[in-house]
Order: sequence, then structure tokens, then C-alpha cells
Amino acid sequence: MKVQCLKGFRDYLPGEMLQKERMLASVREVFEQHGYPPLMTPALEYAEVLTGKYGDEGEMLLYRFRDNGDRDVALRYDLTVPLARVLAEHGDIGMPFRRYQIAPVWRAEKPARGRFREFMQCDVDLIGVDSAAADAEMLVIGAAVMQRFGIESYRLRINHRGILTALCRLVGLEGATEADFLRILDKLDKIGEEKFRAEVAKIPGLDESGLDKVLEVVLCDQKDPAGVLDHIRSILGEDELANEAIDRMQAILEIVDAAGIASCCQIDPSIARGLSYYTGLVYETFLDELPQVGSVMSGGRYDDLVGMFSGKDLPAIGISLGIDRLFYALGELDLLSGEKQPAQMLVVLFSDELAPASFAAASRFRSAGIETLVYPKAAKVKKQLQFAQKSDIPYVAVIGVEESRAGTVQFRDMEAGSQEELSIEAVIEKVHAGRSPS
Amino acid sequence: MKVQCLKGFRDYLPGEMLQKERMLASVREVFEQHGYPPLMTPALEYAEVLTGKYGDEGEMLLYRFRDNGDRDVALRYDLTVPLARVLAEHGDIGMPFRRYQIAPVWRAEKPARGRFREFMQCDVDLIGVDSAAADAEMLVIGAAVMQRFGIESYRLRINHRGILTALCRLVGLEGATEADFLRILDKLDKIGEEKFRAEVAKIPGLDESGLDKVLEVVLCDQKDPAGVLDHIRSILGEDELANEAIDRMQAILEIVDAAGIASCCQIDPSIARGLSYYTGLVYETFLDELPQVGSVMSGGRYDDLVGMFSGKDLPAIGISLGIDRLFYALGELDLLSGEKQPAQMLVVLFSDELAPASFAAASRFRSAGIETLVYPKAAKVKKQLQFAQKSDIPYVAVIGVEESRAGTVQFRDMEAGSQEELSIEAVIEKVHAGRSPS
Repeated sequence: MKVQCLKGFRDYLPGEMLQKERMLASVREVFEQHGYPPLMTPALEYAEVLTGKYGDEGEMLLYRFRDNGDRDVALRYDLTVPLARVLAEHGDIGMPFRRYQIAPVWRAEKPARGRFREFMQCDVDLIGVDSAAADAEMLVIGAAVMQRFGIESYRLRINHRGILTALCRLVGLEGATEADFLRILDKLDKIGEEKFRAEVAKIPGLDESGLDKVLEVVLCDQKDPAGVLDHIRSILGEDELANEAIDRMQAILEIVDAAGIASCCQIDPSIARGLSYYTGLVYETFLDELPQVGSVMSGGRYDDLVGMFSGKDLPAIGISLGIDRLFYALGELDLLSGEKQPAQMLVVLFSDELAPASFAAASRFRSAGIETLVYPKAAKVKKQLQFAQKSDIPYVAVIGVEESRAGTVQFRDMEAGSQEELSIEAVIEKVHAGRSPS
Repeated sequence: MKVQCLKGFRDYLPGEMLQKERMLASVREVFEQHGYPPLMTPALEYAEVLTGKYGDEGEMLLYRFRDNGDRDVALRYDLTVPLARVLAEHGDIGMPFRRYQIAPVWRAEKPARGRFREFMQCDVDLIGVDSAAADAEMLVIGAAVMQRFGIESYRLRINHRGILTALCRLVGLEGATEADFLRILDKLDKIGEEKFRAEVAKIPGLDESGLDKVLEVVLCDQKDPAGVLDHIRSILGEDELANEAIDRMQAILEIVDAAGIASCCQIDPSIARGLSYYTGLVYETFLDELPQVGSVMSGGRYDDLVGMFSGKDLPAIGISLGIDRLFYALGELDLLSGEKQPAQMLVVLFSDELAPASFAAASRFRSAGIETLVYPKAAKVKKQLQFAQKSDIPYVAVIGVEESRAGTVQFRDMEAGSQEELSIEAVIEKVHAGRSPS
């Protein structure tokens, strides 16, 4: 019998999961600080709600089956289509509509290092408004998440679909072949100019005479966002779509500047993302110290997707956090909570007779806000101290016969290796003082 | 096309979900205060891990299917069997092992009012120890959850399997027929003594001469737990198993007394629960003001279950919160967070030109810990105030041309209906003062 975790899936054991839970709590806090409430949708949906939304490749990755009532059902593949379903089903939901959702999704992917078939998505979306303010809000939230994590050095690389479309027009492409061109453009960083030229030359209908201009836009070495926009306008200024995009970007930049996060934003005309989806602003986030991790936070404006079920015009913009990548990156940057377990204090269980005294002390510690574990069985003090050591519990209280009578405890600071007899009040004071050194 | 939530499932829309999230955050807080860290296991398991664990009825309710790699898989039915799988798979996990898990489980139940096919389970378990201290710890945690919720009037009704077995012996039953007897005993409250006698009389092998003694134990009208135990001992004292159970209960009572929660505990020899599972202490929790809701928190010692995969002897005790019932009950008792959305403050977007000023103010409010929403589009101030009203946002800041120049805001207290021009610092002070009236 296979007593093991399903292939492509994984457990988060307590130490790691505590750190992950702390990280998610921070994310929730940031979202709510910006006025976003949570939404929860079921893991399973009618298959026809999900099919036809993710392309042929996505379709193959759906966990789809017949349920016990012979319904055609599937596990959710992302959190966006279920959001669209909710908005169609609850037609009276007020607009603008905001929500965040942090929940697992399932994709029958080929498992690989760091890629699992169940992973958590973490999305925040603002529905019902197409404005520079709405666009800027997403960047503000993204930057607030990074700040809350203590990440100092990162770049929100932003672009606009209007600029990308204008670039395609420069080389005479429109419609289906646009995506091919942009897919190659997206790789320019990695493959270099020469290979880029060779690859795009294969696209049917490509007008090579415009390529120099495209590269002039994309390889712009201006650092200042306003300077980049001016540069883009100098080349694409005759394209109406590009002009609108540049105007919008300018308005967004003014807002993020006022919000104090302009220094983290960078205009990058090569950022393309999954373009089929997006209709306006797009962004990716890279950590300066860990570029190899890839984008940890991304998204954009997708005005045609959420209204697909309701037929209503529902402009939308969102940001999605790559929780697994972020968890890995925070670990690398030593920014995860150091806790491996939640207890600050271990109360030793000296003997069965003294269990009530130990529990009474534990209750008082907990009431004072100290996370406290009682060793669950009478055992040698040495063994219990070893448990505290192994579990990284910083403080230990031993209550023996004498201490129980005197209403005191032997208080042990595991790191300092010191031990002293103290009243419970004195222990509480010490622990509080140790937590907030001032 | 069915654009709707799958039959038997439900969405939690933002207002309700925010309250639920707040409730779950409290639960996590209590668990961690007692030194329990979280665990996360996948939604899907190999079917053979889950099958044969839940009885024939449970088996029928499994969501089981062949995955894209033709593996026989199933959605988890509870959080206990996955826990047992984790302990078998990670053999080097230290003991005693503690974890909590809050996660959805799936059962293809016939949907009914308040019963869904996806629901959240919330379990805390302590593995590797069989002791009165471990038993008492569960009751302490359960009481702490109730206290954290603000529930004042509830009863933790506790019993011990040893007492139940001794009751069965009084009427000559052992083994398979025991469960039938206890199932009827469990209903005694509802069906009354006469019907109870009639129903048990049908059990083959029942020795009716012992029935009076059974009823004498079960209908004990002592209130004081120590008195109940004395009463039980006076009747079952010659049964060794009962004696051991009574000794254990006595030790548990001393501990919960020391922990300050004895007044919430009540010994109730009729509490049986799903007996096949349990081997020692069992408990159910009822709210005095809402008895019709049923048990909101239950569990017990189940020493033979967790070791089933590893073959190791892994004594275990746990408590499971009925999150959905508790959510309903907290609503009825008016103990849920009143928030329908997280924002304390709405910053009005007066015009596109003033968007930067509004975002700058919002950033300062958020830095001061005030959850702040910016209206995402320039619109009439009246419309934006209506939005604040409808959304229950208590404070509004309007920044027009004059205010932007002067570095002030028009600060509106929605409830008081007052409005005044204040500096941003003054607004922050006012909001903080309004939050913690002292």
C-alpha cells in the first residue's frame, strides 16, 4: 500500500507551514489595509464554467471528472474564472468590486523542482473601473506587500499593451502574428539582439524595416520613467493607441510618485506577459538580489475577461502574488519569521501530582500574552529541557514541590543558560522585557 | 450554459468571508497561544490512503476519480487520516507532535439546509502521549476558543469510553452490540426513558436486569463534577475499566480546575460520540443559549487510529471545531466582527488632476495604521459619499483644489454627519481617538 503523498503534491510540515502562515497573514493585512475584503469560492466548479478559458494547453491540465451525481466537474485552475462566475451569478454585487482570494488551485502539470500540481494563488482584483487611479492602486498594493515583507530592493516593471501593439504595427504585424512577435520580444533579454532579429525574421508578413525602431524603443537605456516615456513618444507618437497608452502611463506615474513608490517602478517596453488576456497596463516584479527567481508579482488590466459570463462590460485589473516564489525568496533573503514553532515558554511537568500547578501557571502566562506549551507528560526534567532546546523554545518554567508551595517557578532562559526562582509575575515581566528590548 | 456554483457548494462573498476570516484568525491565535503550529496537507490523496477508514457510508461519500496519470485519487474526507499518513511518511517527526489544520474537506453528502459538500474542518491534535495532562490540554484549548469568541455560557460535556464499556457490561453486552446500545443511549435525552427501554430491548443478548443501574448512572442529577464521579463510582466501582476511567477523569478535573475552566466542564455519562474511533476521554460542547445548534466542538482520545499506517503505537487526542456551526452561532449571539468591509476611511477622488493628492493622503493614513480605500475614479462627491454610506465606511476625506493647496482635507465623520477642515495629522489623531475611546 502506498502510504505517501500523491505524486506532484506536497505537505507543508509545521515548522515551514508556520512561516508560510505568517507570510500569508502579512499579505492579508496589506490587502485589508487597502480596503480589500476576502472572497471564498469552492474548489470544484461545473466543468463548463472552466473549459474554453485557458487555451488547449490549460484544458489538458484540468483535473476534470464525473462526480457522484454524474455531473461534469473540475477543480479550479485559477481564481480569476471563478471570480467572473461569482460576478455573473450575483448580479447585484455593487461596483466598484474589490476582493482578494488566497487559495490553492490545481493543475495536472508535469511536476518539476519547485513546481507542484497544487499551489496557492494569491490574487487581488478591482472590478468595474477603468482609470489611471485603479491602475496605480495595484502598483501601490504590490509595493506595500514588498515593504511589509522587508524587501528593499525590487523593481515593478510596467508596460502597456497599447505600446506593444504600436510596436507590432511598426513591423507591419496585426492580429494573430502579433503574439508570435511579442513572445520573441519577451525573450530579447536572454537571446540578444542578433538572435532576436533572426527569429522574428521567420514571422510571415514581418516588415523588417521597422525593426530598428522597435529596438530603439525596447532597448531604451533611460532610467528615469518620465524620460523613458518621452523617448517612447518620440518614436511611437504618431500612433494614436500608443499615445493613449503613454498618457495613461504618465497619469499612473504621477499617482505612484505621490504615493511614494515611484522609485520602485520602471517602465520596460519589453514586458509582454500572456498578452491574449491583457488590455492595458501590465507589470512584473523582480527582486534585485534574486533575479533568477523570476517575477514574484505580476498582473495587469484585463477588461474583457470578467464580463465573459454576464455579457456586461466589466473592466478589471488585478495583481497576483507568486506565493511559492516569494516564500523561497524571503527564505533566501532571511526575511521569513524565524519561528519554527509558536511557543515562547515551556512549562515543565514535574510529576502527575504537580500537573495542576503547571497548568495554572500556563494559564497565567497565556493570559499575559505569552504563547505557552505544557509538556504533556511527567518526565525527567532533563528530557523536557532537551525538548525545549530541540524545539527552539526560549524560556522554560519548572514548578517542583517547593516552587508549587511557594507560588514561584524556576525560570530558565535557554539561550543565556541562566536559571532563577521567580514569582509568576516576575517571569511575565522578564519575558515581555526580553521580547521588546528597548 | 450553467454559470452557477456547483450543486451542494457555496461561495462566501466578501462581507461574510471577512467575518469568517476574522473568526479563523482568532482560532489560529488560540491554537498558537497553546504552542500548536499549523500543518498543511494536499487536497488530493491516493485513494487507497483514504479508503477503508470511514466505514461503508463514508466510502460512498468520497470524491474519488482517476487523475490525468490514471492514478486512483480522492479528495480528502477529513484531516485525521491525512495526519496519520504524514506521521507514517515522515517517521522522524519528533514526539510529542502537535499540529492544527484548518482546511476544507469534501463529502458527496445529500445537500441540506446548512450542509454542504465542501466544508471547513478545524482540528487540533496532540500525538504521542497518553496522559491526563494531554487530555486536559484539549479541554483547556476548547475553553480558550470559547473565551476568545466571547461565548460566556457553554458546557464542555465530557465522558470516558471506559465508563461506557462498563455500562454495556451491566446489560451483558460486549463487542458488536455495544455500539447499538450506545447509539440508543446517545438519544436518551430526546426519546425519553420509556422509548429507550423499548428500543434497547430489541438488542439480542441484552440483560434487562442491569438497565436500572445504567439509567441511575446516566440520569445522575448531580451538578458538581466530583459528585458525579462519586456517584458513578458507587455504581460501577467494581468494574476495573470503569475505575481506571474514573481515576483518569478525576486527574483531568483537577487539572482543568487549576487552569480555571472547571465551571464549564460537566461530566455526562451519556455522551457517546462515534465510539468506534475513540478509546478514552470524549467530549461535546453545547451553547447554553443555542442548544438547537448541537455540538460546536468535539473530539476525544483515539489511540489506535494515527498509528494505523506506521504500525507504531501513537496515542492521540484531538478536538475538532464545527466552524460552520460556530459561525452561525456567533452570528446569532451577535459576537461576529461587525465589519462588512475592512476600510475605515474613504479618500474621495475629486478629479483626475487631484488623484496624486488623494493617493498621497491615503499612503499617510495607511502608514498610520488606518485601513484606507481610495475611490478608484473621479466622480461626483455625492456619489462617493453614498458609496461610503452603503459600504459602512465610517470616515471620509475629501481633498479638493483648495485642500490640496493648503495641505488639508475635509474630514467627514459619517455617523456624526459632521465635517471639518483638518490637517492630515489631525485626521489621524481623530480616527485613532475614535477607535479606542478612553
